[in-house]
Amino acid sequence: LARRLHGIPPTIFSEMSALAVRTGAVNLGQGFPDVDGPPPVIAAAVAALEHGANQYAPGIGVPALRRAIAAHQQRHYGLQVDPDTEVVVTTGATEGVAAALLGLVDPGDEVVLLEPFYDSYPAMLQVAGGVRRPVTLRGPDYRLDVEELRAAVTPRTRFVLLNTPHNPTGTVLSRPELQAVADLAIEHDLVVITDEVYEHLTFDDAEHVPLATLPGMWERTLTLSSAGKSYSFTGWKVGWATGPAPLVQAVLAAKQWLTFTSGSPLQPAVAVALEEHPDFPRSLAASLRERRDLLVAGLREAGLEPTVPQGTYFASTDVAHLGWADGDAFCRALPERAGVVAIPAQGFYDPDLPASREAGRHHVRWAFCKEPAVIADGVARLAAAD
Amino acid sequence: LARRLHGIPPTIFSEMSALAVRTGAVNLGQGFPDVDGPPPVIAAAVAALEHGANQYAPGIGVPALRRAIAAHQQRHYGLQVDPDTEVVVTTGATEGVAAALLGLVDPGDEVVLLEPFYDSYPAMLQVAGGVRRPVTLRGPDYRLDVEELRAAVTPRTRFVLLNTPHNPTGTVLSRPELQAVADLAIEHDLVVITDEVYEHLTFDDAEHVPLATLPGMWERTLTLSSAGKSYSFTGWKVGWATGPAPLVQAVLAAKQWLTFTSGSPLQPAVAVALEEHPDFPRSLAASLRERRDLLVAGLREAGLEPTVPQGTYFASTDVAHLGWADGDAFCRALPERAGVVAIPAQGFYDPDLPASREAGRHHVRWAFCKEPAVIADGVARLAAAD
Ligand SMILES: CSCCC(=O)C(=O)O
Ligand SMILES: CSCCC(=O)C(=O)O
Repeated sequence: LARRLHGIPPTIFSEMSALAVRTGAVNLGQGFPDVDGPPPVIAAAVAALEHGANQYAPGIGVPALRRAIAAHQQRHYGLQVDPDTEVVVTTGATEGVAAALLGLVDPGDEVVLLEPFYDSYPAMLQVAGGVRRPVTLRGPDYRLDVEELRAAVTPRTRFVLLNTPHNPTGTVLSRPELQAVADLAIEHDLVVITDEVYEHLTFDDAEHVPLATLPGMWERTLTLSSAGKSYSFTGWKVGWATGPAPLVQAVLAAKQWLTFTSGSPLQPAVAVALEEHPDFPRSLAASLRERRDLLVAGLREAGLEPTVPQGTYFASTDVAHLGWADGDAFCRALPERAGVVAIPAQGFYDPDLPASREAGRHHVRWAFCKEPAVIADGVARLAAAD
Repeated sequence: LARRLHGIPPTIFSEMSALAVRTGAVNLGQGFPDVDGPPPVIAAAVAALEHGANQYAPGIGVPALRRAIAAHQQRHYGLQVDPDTEVVVTTGATEGVAAALLGLVDPGDEVVLLEPFYDSYPAMLQVAGGVRRPVTLRGPDYRLDVEELRAAVTPRTRFVLLNTPHNPTGTVLSRPELQAVADLAIEHDLVVITDEVYEHLTFDDAEHVPLATLPGMWERTLTLSSAGKSYSFTGWKVGWATGPAPLVQAVLAAKQWLTFTSGSPLQPAVAVALEEHPDFPRSLAASLRERRDLLVAGLREAGLEPTVPQGTYFASTDVAHLGWADGDAFCRALPERAGVVAIPAQGFYDPDLPASREAGRHHVRWAFCKEPAVIADGVARLAAAD
């Protein structure tokens, strides 16, 4: 194994989904829905398969999809995006993250990122030789502490790696929080890479504000998103990066060697999703809100006091008061104890910083992107467990 | 742009395919067929889409596909492969190359590779900090010079990056040539990464011998392949790596952060291709042989003396005697002169070595994975050009 990968554990999602399959537990772990997206979008993929969209798509993405992505940014956020130079299609946002970090971050560059973080961020930062500077969102409310954010910036800081709506906490960064990020980025001439795959999955009064819409931010923001979460096709792995041409071209410069292209017959279908089903994501969010409430009520019932998330697929609980050594031990025992799989968030905190380790020790993440009956079954099992 | 990507030009395939679209030229450039693979395989993808294979596949690949890949290795080559630990599904062989190099090569490691090389090899080697040691296959016959191969190995050599059947030359390495690679690998304790995506596309008496089948080589060989070329679905980007568990796990260790997974509804269809259509690739090869002969005869007619390839999609010509400064100038003028796109192979030679630059200066590659009428049109245009 090359040194750039030493000490990086396998992604927790593979491990926990395999555990769910092996034990037959209710899987409230990995974030994928158990109901697929709009049937007409599937029909569009079928038509593409049957009508010859089976050879290499352009590395940058098929024109119809790039136009649909640009139109989506215009429709939802008023952003003007050139589909030929300011959009690149990626193999899900995961490839967007990998290509952005390989394409932009030099060894020694410091990168400020929200903690807890999605596990591919620190892994690819290590591969790129970047230095992580985590800013912890602390429970139970998981807001951004603007003072901590400012303190994380040094003369070697070049990037902020943002994620809103935030996985795993469910925090949706508010406009003042985002303005603080923007002020800092402008003051220190930082580029912001922002993972907004849950952009449409917000609840109650929470409003997702793309960082790129803030004054002065378009030119220094690379925005990543995907059809996986917005349209319930996580397995299609059709994502995209949008932003000013130099940032998008850096993503393309790396991505062309990672996969070159992918999902030729799926790309036109995602174009159909974006163009013809612009309201699907909001109706999905409405349905997720109900399922969030079901999960939250059930977790409360079971003595696990959850933080009520404003967005994403996930709710968080602190299992400290239940007497477990840590979230990892809790989650590893859970299939046997209760027949449920959840994700220990410990791996999403910096293992080299004692304060981070401490902040994450008892943090467990629960997914509610599942059918109501599945959630009800899961929480009933939790309530029945010892 | 991060320094690891400095000086790497955009992939020539994107550029030349865009040129073909823009000029309406006959595209004998990028290697993709103009007829899709078996309709029942498309039907299998349709069934997967309609029956819910739309969420994340396991990062390692869906079980049915991993089993089918293992069975393929057994059926064609007598190799016993454990589908759970010795196979990983990748987003085409391109991701296989990227993940293998990121997962195995440390900065400063020397990597012996055949030249001309597929352009992602030197690009990802540079990203990984590996040092390339090219061994040139020289026209007109493009055989491996075993003395040159031995001379390329130094005490810092750790890997050989092989490709057979070889793109762009069409050389299929013979058993004695492969034995020389094997002897060297064993003598110097090298790991061989071998890209065998054209494994089934061989002509006449040429036989593809997987390096992993040579005595003592399984344990030090990582083999990459893909359904794209064998089943004419280049846009699906379903590929795989097979080999001993430590090498395959290194690929997975990198790949989980590059894309995590991809093509959920396409993976089961590729399993169907491998299991139920094992003879398709040979019939494709038979049809390609005819189209090779058509292209070769047409290039001769047009005064371009091609090397007759033993495998792959490609034939090579040396345009020196036509009075062009180099292949790049020739190919850039060709759409206007003749209404045809071909690939200048110059980018597949080491730009830092004068002998390599010289070897590649007039090398032009022509694809024959096109319908006979398209090839006939292309060569007629060439014959009619001034
Ligand atoms: C790519 S696997 C992880 C899926 C996901 O987004 C999550 O569970 O956080
Ligand atoms: C991934 S684009 C290149 C396709 C191909 O294999 C070739 O033309 O050599």
